[in-house]
Amino acid sequence: MANLNGTTSDLRAKFLAVYDVLKSELLNDPAFEWTEGSRQWVERMLDYNVPGGKLNRGLSVIDSYMLLKGKDLTEDEVFLASSLGWCIEWLQAYFLVTDDIMDNSQTRRGQPCWYRVPKVGMIAVNDGILLRNHIPRILKNHFREKPYYVDLLDLFNEVEFQTASGQMIDLITTIEGEKDLSKYSLPLHRRIVQYKTAYYSFYLPVACALLMAGENLDNHVNVKDVLIDMGIYFQVQDDYLDCFGEPEKIGKIGTDIEDFKCSWLVVKALELCNEDQKKILFEHYGKENPSDVAKIKALYHEINLQGAFEEYESKSYEKLTTSIQAHPNKGLQAVLKSFLGKIYKRQK
Amino acid sequence: MANLNGTTSDLRAKFLAVYDVLKSELLNDPAFEWTEGSRQWVERMLDYNVPGGKLNRGLSVIDSYMLLKGKDLTEDEVFLASSLGWCIEWLQAYFLVTDDIMDNSQTRRGQPCWYRVPKVGMIAVNDGILLRNHIPRILKNHFREKPYYVDLLDLFNEVEFQTASGQMIDLITTIEGEKDLSKYSLPLHRRIVQYKTAYYSFYLPVACALLMAGENLDNHVNVKDVLIDMGIYFQVQDDYLDCFGEPEKIGKIGTDIEDFKCSWLVVKALELCNEDQKKILFEHYGKENPSDVAKIKALYHEINLQGAFEEYESKSYEKLTTSIQAHPNKGLQAVLKSFLGKIYKRQK
Repeated sequence: MANLNGTTSDLRAKFLAVYDVLKSELLNDPAFEWTEGSRQWVERMLDYNVPGGKLNRGLSVIDSYMLLKGKDLTEDEVFLASSLGWCIEWLQAYFLVTDDIMDNSQTRRGQPCWYRVPKVGMIAVNDGILLRNHIPRILKNHFREKPYYVDLLDLFNEVEFQTASGQMIDLITTIEGEKDLSKYSLPLHRRIVQYKTAYYSFYLPVACALLMAGENLDNHVNVKDVLIDMGIYFQVQDDYLDCFGEPEKIGKIGTDIEDFKCSWLVVKALELCNEDQKKILFEHYGKENPSDVAKIKALYHEINLQGAFEEYESKSYEKLTTSIQAHPNKGLQAVLKSFLGKIYKRQK
Repeated sequence: MANLNGTTSDLRAKFLAVYDVLKSELLNDPAFEWTEGSRQWVERMLDYNVPGGKLNRGLSVIDSYMLLKGKDLTEDEVFLASSLGWCIEWLQAYFLVTDDIMDNSQTRRGQPCWYRVPKVGMIAVNDGILLRNHIPRILKNHFREKPYYVDLLDLFNEVEFQTASGQMIDLITTIEGEKDLSKYSLPLHRRIVQYKTAYYSFYLPVACALLMAGENLDNHVNVKDVLIDMGIYFQVQDDYLDCFGEPEKIGKIGTDIEDFKCSWLVVKALELCNEDQKKILFEHYGKENPSDVAKIKALYHEINLQGAFEEYESKSYEKLTTSIQAHPNKGLQAVLKSFLGKIYKRQK
């Protein structure tokens, strides 16, 4: 991407500058009578929760739109694509703030979760709601007169609904006191991942770019399907790295085994195990004790889960590549290839 | 209203029948791959939280639309107005589910708060999010082809933003450990009430009816202003009844004094008190102990807060009536009069 609209780090700087503009508009939204206290609260909450991630989702809107357009963007186009990118980052922040409350998590992006910050507590529920409400405010401020405005609203609404529905099946299959490994399966894993992660992380950025490019999303169901498959593949990698990745590279110590997560590893293990090995899984999965965790990891090695993952990885790559090459539109091929290139064989 | 589209209880029955239709559509939404478990969860969550209230907000959309139209509604119009009414009830359910978590409340509508139901707990945060997400699903299912579809989306988005912003100032002025009565004032009370309650409870139903009637909301800022004033008056009554109402009539025992609420009574008391009386307020307001509560109630009687309320009530009524009579449109006059008639001198 370095030859379009400057280097990647230029683009990142431009993208970050748009955050300041959007934040300032939100803090002066005429639909509300601001007090100094409320303005300060929202500004601190935004700075704490919105811009601190890797920003991949947001930046990929600009990338994708450039590839679709096939030439340099105007300043105005960079601003609009960045605004949509930030809407996705706002959506992400909203999910993270509320998920952390529901999962009783401790840290996020190397700092305490927002609801654990002194004096925040359960106010974080409303802050999550505010983050979510900022998205339609941003869209109204900058896209109200665009022909695709209503499609943007529909898109964000549908994707949020799908994400919340995915989160629901994740939550109800892991209700405390009902930890039951026999509920876990590859189709359940696929369903959770597809709805909870793939739609908003992979489909949404490209769909935003397509709308900006004047496309009708109904004509791009195949693009959606490829992106959803890529999102599922991405999450399987995430599950793999949680156990087999290097903590220094992935930036955290995985705890999926302790947390009884419906990880690809455990559902694949259930598929590969014999009856004796299954007993070990049922007895030791989802326990805090390091010796339980060690037994699970030993089992994973015994059944060669790493080999199974490598097979999954190469088959996914092959399938995705074939789908992408079959696509008639060169610009969209480039968009999809760019996404795939960023995630294939990633180690972090 | 009894002469249009049958009696009030007929209308209520029709309205309730629409709930079943909308619920069934949501439980079969093609944007999600349902499992039996997830469908059961959502159905139970909806039945627990959505239809159990007084339904005033929802029913008032149908009422208002009938008065604006000035003649009987077709079956289709009753269905559409009911659907918008239910969207407001869904919005209300979403606010109540999440507010109860934030306020650590025990009961709601005579049953345990949803998050206190066994196995629900913090999943209630996501259930609140689902309730909120159902609104655009309902709107898309039934209004996508209407010329006012985008205005409906904008309306619900703006009103939700205002409500969440009102909730924010309420939450940050009553942060635990920073209970400070000197922050409370009539302008702060007005601001909390206007944003947290008046927009969605009073303006939103009429705005929905206006959109259905083909009106542009920008042409009805004066109607909005009257409804917001009515909403503020309604909440002042609520604050009054919490302390001075009959528990048998209002269906609960008020605890605003114990809860350190920014009630109209305490801000009015602060205005009316001399320095000695103020000391009593600062010392005893917001404490659980019945003797503290009794001291506050005694002070309220001493400064004749009931008289102050009656004066506020009659002045509000006069002002609202004058504004309504000044309105050029007879249909809208009827809508506003109907709202005022339902709340003036209410005892529950």
